[in-house]
Amino acid sequence: MGDRSWDEFEIIRRFFSRMGSPFAEEIQTGIGDDAAVVKRGKDAWTLVTHDMMVEDVHYRASWMSPFNLARKLSKVNISDIAAMAGTPEYALLSIALPDTLPAGWLEDFSEGLQMTFLEYGVSLIGGDTSRSPGPVMVAITLMGSCGPWGPLLRHAPNAHETLYVSGTLGDAALGLAILNHDPLAAAHSDEEDVAYLTRRHLDPTPRLELGQMLAAKGLATTLIDISDGLIGDLEHLLEGVTLGAEITYDAIPRSPAFTRLAPRFHPTPEALILSGGEDYELLFTSPHAPSELKKRAPLVAERVTAIGKITETGEITVVKDGKPIRMESGGFRHQFHQKGTS
Amino acid sequence: MGDRSWDEFEIIRRFFSRMGSPFAEEIQTGIGDDAAVVKRGKDAWTLVTHDMMVEDVHYRASWMSPFNLARKLSKVNISDIAAMAGTPEYALLSIALPDTLPAGWLEDFSEGLQMTFLEYGVSLIGGDTSRSPGPVMVAITLMGSCGPWGPLLRHAPNAHETLYVSGTLGDAALGLAILNHDPLAAAHSDEEDVAYLTRRHLDPTPRLELGQMLAAKGLATTLIDISDGLIGDLEHLLEGVTLGAEITYDAIPRSPAFTRLAPRFHPTPEALILSGGEDYELLFTSPHAPSELKKRAPLVAERVTAIGKITETGEITVVKDGKPIRMESGGFRHQFHQKGTS
Repeated sequence: MGDRSWDEFEIIRRFFSRMGSPFAEEIQTGIGDDAAVVKRGKDAWTLVTHDMMVEDVHYRASWMSPFNLARKLSKVNISDIAAMAGTPEYALLSIALPDTLPAGWLEDFSEGLQMTFLEYGVSLIGGDTSRSPGPVMVAITLMGSCGPWGPLLRHAPNAHETLYVSGTLGDAALGLAILNHDPLAAAHSDEEDVAYLTRRHLDPTPRLELGQMLAAKGLATTLIDISDGLIGDLEHLLEGVTLGAEITYDAIPRSPAFTRLAPRFHPTPEALILSGGEDYELLFTSPHAPSELKKRAPLVAERVTAIGKITETGEITVVKDGKPIRMESGGFRHQFHQKGTS
Repeated sequence: MGDRSWDEFEIIRRFFSRMGSPFAEEIQTGIGDDAAVVKRGKDAWTLVTHDMMVEDVHYRASWMSPFNLARKLSKVNISDIAAMAGTPEYALLSIALPDTLPAGWLEDFSEGLQMTFLEYGVSLIGGDTSRSPGPVMVAITLMGSCGPWGPLLRHAPNAHETLYVSGTLGDAALGLAILNHDPLAAAHSDEEDVAYLTRRHLDPTPRLELGQMLAAKGLATTLIDISDGLIGDLEHLLEGVTLGAEITYDAIPRSPAFTRLAPRFHPTPEALILSGGEDYELLFTSPHAPSELKKRAPLVAERVTAIGKITETGEITVVKDGKPIRMESGGFRHQFHQKGTS
């Protein structure tokens, strides 16, 4: 039948989703959430996540300094803990490095790591180092805890709940488009918008405090961070339920810099907003409408924007100017090919 | 000054050893032991380790099937938990794969993982999947626990204690020499010795039960698994103390297969025994001489061999036929080069 091709979610689902000991009753959530959750007794959970970054897959050395690489790798993992309403604690670092590195590479990388870990209270407790005959590969396993209210999971939202996002969407994807367009110009740009947008891609901000507030005050039913793109991560949120969502396109928050520069660097800014990914903002559902949320938790309300509702339709619809817009499903996925034998 | 070159232990020591939050009092052992130890309350510890395997660095696809790769990756990590006297529990899998894989690769790999995890009671709870523009890279983060007696650490032995090893040494290194010599012949050999030795390299046996018995009965002062080679790992055991060790070469246990085949495949079998590595046997120090150990714990005594003593000399000496033999320090280390700027 020739080659078979899978994306990364399919590989996980098909080969690795139901593996291991049937006796592990402590596993509250395994594969399929932002982080795994292991119950450690009454009101105590260990969260653990693992994310890697591979040169020429997740970034290019032409626009990602070792300092920023360490920061982004750390923050991508911290964001997974934020998306469980947790607190990051311990990290293991895995690095595979080519025989020859540019001058100062290790100094810059370790400085970026140190700064980020100090900022977020993370301790490096272990890891592994190897030679790489190919690209630089770096990965972090991050462990964390959560308060007595427990972790906030991806599943499952209820019909008619309000969909909220933090911050603004599309910035990181537009930042990436600018970096790929002209990395040197982007790095040395004195244009404030360019600096802001590329920083949003290179050095995202995990929404730890927001995640913890949502859980502590019981404001959210489901929570996920936007790494694959709004639609892609919304699909993850809706996995296993027959519900759908309706999003009001014009309600999706975007930054002034995005509004000004998007048309210059991308033919369809809508794609950046809906499927761009890597903003590491939080997406959650809540039984509370915006007015009610503002009453209950003004500090939460001022950080988030209502962008739509969970519906009973089983579909995701995005409405712009009163009409549904066409869109491609899913976010960013790696494609793999395995040679077929039959 | 031209290029600078470091080995992996130096990279860890120099760039990553003192990193992170100063508030983490729960970290009983961080970087520098087989696994990190986080205290979780009275008589409760979380052990966590991370080991990776990179194609053409740790193995060659010509002699390592995806099935064996998954088994070895799992067992190398399980051995780190064994070396803390722990029990493995939860795993995160990290895989970076080239765009095109041989037919059946993922099926074989996941079958090897599943079989090993079931055998050792490990549950897969998370991880990450990426494309690799270079070699296959696989890694596991393994979490575990230990009994109320706590973990057994590498540090620090006392003078005059007896050094013990489990199993036989040199088999895995000789197996590797055979695989590299003629992988096809090794794979299809009907010679029992060849099959045994290559299996010792491809599919090592973590000594979980032995590690747990040593801790439960309070028989060992220090414990480490032999991954870098006897001398290299003995050096790890002696780090931070001014002690040394004297090893009786002829007391080091070796298999009949090793004795028969070593001269055929290697000019200096002593190097395989002393620095070969990857046997994943346990090395420990005990205040009990062999006769006393046999009285206290016959089940332990029958699995281990006394090979020498901790001395006050500050040096490691290996005595063969009554005379110290010359040897190179250390085990297997990756070398890195970073371009110098000054």
